[in-house]
Amino acid sequence: MEIVCLDLEGVLLPEIWICFAERTGIAELRLTTRDVANYDELMKKRLAILKENRLGLREIEQVISGMNPLEGARDFLERLKTQFQVLVLSDTYYEFAAPLMVKLGSPTLFCHTLEVADDGTIVNYRLRQQDSKKMAVRALHDLNFRVVAVGDSYNDTNMLSEADAGILFRAPENVVEQFPRFPHTQTYEELRDRIQESAERIREGAPN
Amino acid sequence: MEIVCLDLEGVLLPEIWICFAERTGIAELRLTTRDVANYDELMKKRLAILKENRLGLREIEQVISGMNPLEGARDFLERLKTQFQVLVLSDTYYEFAAPLMVKLGSPTLFCHTLEVADDGTIVNYRLRQQDSKKMAVRALHDLNFRVVAVGDSYNDTNMLSEADAGILFRAPENVVEQFPRFPHTQTYEELRDRIQESAERIREGAPN
Repeated sequence: MEIVCLDLEGVLLPEIWICFAERTGIAELRLTTRDVANYDELMKKRLAILKENRLGLREIEQVISGMNPLEGARDFLERLKTQFQVLVLSDTYYEFAAPLMVKLGSPTLFCHTLEVADDGTIVNYRLRQQDSKKMAVRALHDLNFRVVAVGDSYNDTNMLSEADAGILFRAPENVVEQFPRFPHTQTYEELRDRIQESAERIREGAPN
Repeated sequence: MEIVCLDLEGVLLPEIWICFAERTGIAELRLTTRDVANYDELMKKRLAILKENRLGLREIEQVISGMNPLEGARDFLERLKTQFQVLVLSDTYYEFAAPLMVKLGSPTLFCHTLEVADDGTIVNYRLRQQDSKKMAVRALHDLNFRVVAVGDSYNDTNMLSEADAGILFRAPENVVEQFPRFPHTQTYEELRDRIQESAERIREGAPN
C-alpha cells in the first residue's frame, strides 16, 4: 500500500512566518534560515520578537485564522485522500498550524510543539525529533508502506530521498537544478498525475 | 504531542463482514475467528465463499456502499481531529473499507490489502505485517509521539497495552473483565472525555 507524505508550507499552505510578518507588519519576522543559518538562533530570535510585540498564542492564532490555504489545496487534498492514505509532514508547530489545518479538513499532521505559558506567552519550541520528516518516512517503511513524498524546498530533500518516490512542487530553481531526479510540478493537476504515476511505478517494481 | 489511534470496526464502523453477510444473505460469511480460530483458514474460506457466489470486488463495493458508519461516528471523528492528530488502525482491507471511509471524511487508515484479479475476483489477501496495530503504535513512539489507543475487542488489546493509554469502547464483557486497567466507555461523549483525560494525564507524566 502507498502512503503519500505531503510537506505543508509551500505545498498546501503559504509560508506561515512570512504571511504572519506581512499581516502584523513586523518585517523582522520574515527572517528565514537563509538569513540566520542556525535554526535555534532563528527560533529564539522569532520568539523574542513575538514577546517584544506582546504577541502571545491568542493574538497569533487570531492573525493565522485570517490566513487561507493555497488556492485549490483543499480540493486537491480531499480528492487525494479518496485515492491514497495521506500524512502531512511538516517542521511547523501545531499551535501555529491549527487554525489553517481546520480549513484543510484536518488531515493528520506530524510536526512540532511550542511551549506556552499560562498567560499565552510562547516560552520555547520543542522539536519532536531531528530530521523529523525523513524519520517519519523511515517509520512508514518499517510498517511496510511504500511512500510517495512531496515537498517544495531544500529541507524536504532528505524526506524525498528516503521515500520510494519524491516529487517537487513549486520549488526554487536551485533545488530543482540540484535534484534533477525529482520531477518538478507546478499545478495540483500535474502533482496529482505525478503521484499517480509514481505509485503505479512503485507498485509494479515491488510485488509486496 | 499526542496521537489518538482508533480501531475501525466496532469503534467507527459496524463489523464489515457481518454487515456484508446480512446484506447478501450469505450466512456463512458471518464466520469470525471465534468460529474458525486460524485466521488464514478463515480468510481462505471467506474468499472461496465470495468466489462461489460470484461476488467480485465491484459487487462487494456496491454492497458496502449501502452501509453506514455507526451513528454519531462522523461527528465524533470530526471533532476529535480538531483536538488531536488521529490515525485509524485496523485489520480490515482497504478495498472493503474504502466506500465507508469516504463517509467518515477519509481519515488516514493503516490496514491491509487484497489481491484482486483483472476480472475483479479477489484472489488473496496480504497482511501488511503481523500484529500491525501494535507495530504502528511502536513506530509512533519511535517518532516521539505519545499514544492514546481505542479499541473494542480482544485483538485490540496488544495495541492498547503498547499505547501510553488504552480505552475500550463497547467491548464484550469478557474483554472488559480480563483487562480491568483499560477504562470502558459506551458513548462517544464518554469516549471523548476519557481521551481528553488520558491525554492530560500522559502530558503531565512526561515533560517532553
